[in-house]
Amino acid sequence: MFHQALKLVIIVEHFVIEDVCRIIESHHTKGYTLVRAGGKGRHHFHATSDRATVVEGFDNLKIEVVMHDRGVAEAIARDVLKECFEDYSGVMYLENVEVCRPELF
Amino acid sequence: MFHQALKLVIIVEHFVIEDVCRIIESHHTKGYTLVRAGGKGRHHFHATSDRATVVEGFDNLKIEVVMHDRGVAEAIARDVLKECFEDYSGVMYLENVEVCRPELF
Amino acid sequence: MFHQALKLVIIVEHFVIEDVCRIIESHHTKGYTLVRAGGKGRHHFHATSDRATVVEGFDNLKIEVVMHDRGVAEAIARDVLKECFEDYSGVMYLENVEVCRPELF
Repeated sequence: MFHQALKLVIIVEHFVIEDVCRIIESHHTKGYTLVRAGGKGRHHFHATSDRATVVEGFDNLKIEVVMHDRGVAEAIARDVLKECFEDYSGVMYLENVEVCRPELF
Repeated sequence: MFHQALKLVIIVEHFVIEDVCRIIESHHTKGYTLVRAGGKGRHHFHATSDRATVVEGFDNLKIEVVMHDRGVAEAIARDVLKECFEDYSGVMYLENVEVCRPELF
Repeated sequence: MFHQALKLVIIVEHFVIEDVCRIIESHHTKGYTLVRAGGKGRHHFHATSDRATVVEGFDNLKIEVVMHDRGVAEAIARDVLKECFEDYSGVMYLENVEVCRPELF
């Protein structure tokens, strides 16, 4: 009922989100999910050290893309690193998942 | 301190969320978490091809349920596929997690 | 390109979030991500049994911290259990991930 797959998670500042979506689509993935996020840290976005501001600010985006092929995840990651993360902060990681309806990914 | 468990993730259009929650509760799980989400794709919901609209729209929901028993995850998935995904789009996948306080799940 | 790491996920009521962030920072992690969440259940927060209210309410927070060292994840979990979960509800679990740019975590 469930089939092995990979989920690539990318967390970025909102003003690079269209570039990230364009890269994801250019690798022929079949879809992605977006969630609003905030955060703090060296790999994150808020220059402020004020914790209350961090807790209130949700102007980053977390994008999740599920795919079967590790090569696709690596190709997306490589493009995002080169095109979006040289000038801006961001987090990117990969997780193992098991999907229902594998033909949709 | 951490104990092996499973997390079932279901992403659906907001107007089927009550059905999904009813199904989850009917399998005697002890709780679930909800996050607002948007997205795009064959397994997703937006008919639009306008990327800006996708990035702005967060009218889907991501539901996460943690449980110990794979049979429960499969039973929930089977019911959601049958009752909610025949007419509507949606994404469903399973992840391995390690929980604190296993008696709560 | 990707390197093994751990992601600790903590879901709490919003009024303990500053305590959780303080604990995370005290263990010298390099950053964390926040997402608004709602939910229901024994390990969750809503006293209500009204499903519609649950689906509308997003006043909990999901915090994600990526790190390399399981000892750090366990130390954070221990402090959060002691300082935040004795009086309040909450969910905490660990996932294996593979990160890009491991020096940022």
